[in-house]
Amino acid sequence: MAGTTEEFPPVEGGGSLILAWQIRNKKVLIIGGGEVAAGRILKGLNADAAVTVICPASGMNPEVAHRVAEQQITHIDRNFETTDLDDPEIALVMTAIDDPVASSQIWKLCKQKRINANIADVPPECDFYFGSEHRDGPLQIMVSTNGNGPKMANIVRRRIAATLPENIGQAIVKVGELRKKLRKVAPNIEEGPKRMMWMSKVCLAWSLEDFCDMSEEDMEGLLRSYAPDKVPSLNEVRGPWEFDGSFGWSCVC
Amino acid sequence: MAGTTEEFPPVEGGGSLILAWQIRNKKVLIIGGGEVAAGRILKGLNADAAVTVICPASGMNPEVAHRVAEQQITHIDRNFETTDLDDPEIALVMTAIDDPVASSQIWKLCKQKRINANIADVPPECDFYFGSEHRDGPLQIMVSTNGNGPKMANIVRRRIAATLPENIGQAIVKVGELRKKLRKVAPNIEEGPKRMMWMSKVCLAWSLEDFCDMSEEDMEGLLRSYAPDKVPSLNEVRGPWEFDGSFGWSCVC
Repeated sequence: MAGTTEEFPPVEGGGSLILAWQIRNKKVLIIGGGEVAAGRILKGLNADAAVTVICPASGMNPEVAHRVAEQQITHIDRNFETTDLDDPEIALVMTAIDDPVASSQIWKLCKQKRINANIADVPPECDFYFGSEHRDGPLQIMVSTNGNGPKMANIVRRRIAATLPENIGQAIVKVGELRKKLRKVAPNIEEGPKRMMWMSKVCLAWSLEDFCDMSEEDMEGLLRSYAPDKVPSLNEVRGPWEFDGSFGWSCVC
Repeated sequence: MAGTTEEFPPVEGGGSLILAWQIRNKKVLIIGGGEVAAGRILKGLNADAAVTVICPASGMNPEVAHRVAEQQITHIDRNFETTDLDDPEIALVMTAIDDPVASSQIWKLCKQKRINANIADVPPECDFYFGSEHRDGPLQIMVSTNGNGPKMANIVRRRIAATLPENIGQAIVKVGELRKKLRKVAPNIEEGPKRMMWMSKVCLAWSLEDFCDMSEEDMEGLLRSYAPDKVPSLNEVRGPWEFDGSFGWSCVC
């Protein structure tokens, strides 16, 4: 094995494991009903979780009250009780209450029960942290500075958002459709690797802006030209067009 | 509550909960020793996890063998056995083996034991997915398209990397230092909110490039001027300098 060390990426410790957690229809328990809780609730809802908030109605932030009124979330109108963690279906617990002793007890109970938890403002009592997030449709971009500067994370996130084409989220939806349509154009299982290779080539040949510009017709045109070694540019897909006085633009190829 | 709906951010479902999972010194079990396992192992090591890989030595990828030889990870030289999940300290399990039946059994066992798991290439048997990640020191940026196009995620990630100042990671380290030093300059607990406010103002007033340019001396200069309502620009911190024939540049203010 001598001399092969350089082949492999070096370990760069000090990071987090950045993950896209899947909580669609899963039970997420939020303890507390203030501003921080409101943020956690929205994160859960944006990931299609079944969110329950436990807090006395009297201490509820207007946004949380709004989510309850709109039946976006389930509300338990009292303080946390230890039996709230008995449900084996609970996937995540997030607390945001001004009671460090109760918070710490919830954390310990979660760990006994092997429930993933985040105790707001108590980093050692968190299985996971949040970062600064940019969302555009199916596109999610998360920036973490691993505790060095949450404000810097926001600045970097804003810089990223300003850099990306405006309709990038929609472009990614279209690429998702393109992949689905491609499976119909070349449905055989054994075509799988070829389809993947072709998608890779399209993604290499086309710019982000090309995908943003791609219309339904462009997509159909691109799919019509599907062949393992052939990737036309967006302009080639559009082909030479001529103006037909009565019917508008039409392709002459 | 009528008319207040618009005040609150609308729910935008279909996303994931993007998290910075904390696995420093925690046990992460990787089942399988191929190329995909090698990638998972590196992700664990980059987040300072105590990684154990379970796979017969005969089927080991060179990168995994390298990590074992360098004692970066623990190796169990055999196939997975159900008792491997008995350790209550296991935080995460990731499998990457070419055996769908065994993979599915591992998933079910993990769920019985409430262990977080990712079964490679089987989306329904995953608590979490990975995205395309950019790392620069303490800065981690993750791009997810929520399954619409992994290649698009890579393109977006490369675009982001190309957009950021080259030494942004180092700049974030410096901001982390600045925050620590600020706590020494203004150590009183009751100064906390003022310090946070001041850091916010600095982050608003300075550009990413300013932080990238900031030297140790600049940092000391900025801290010397610490006052709740005063945030000098980088140029002001550097002050008016004059060339002194014998001693080089020195500040005249």
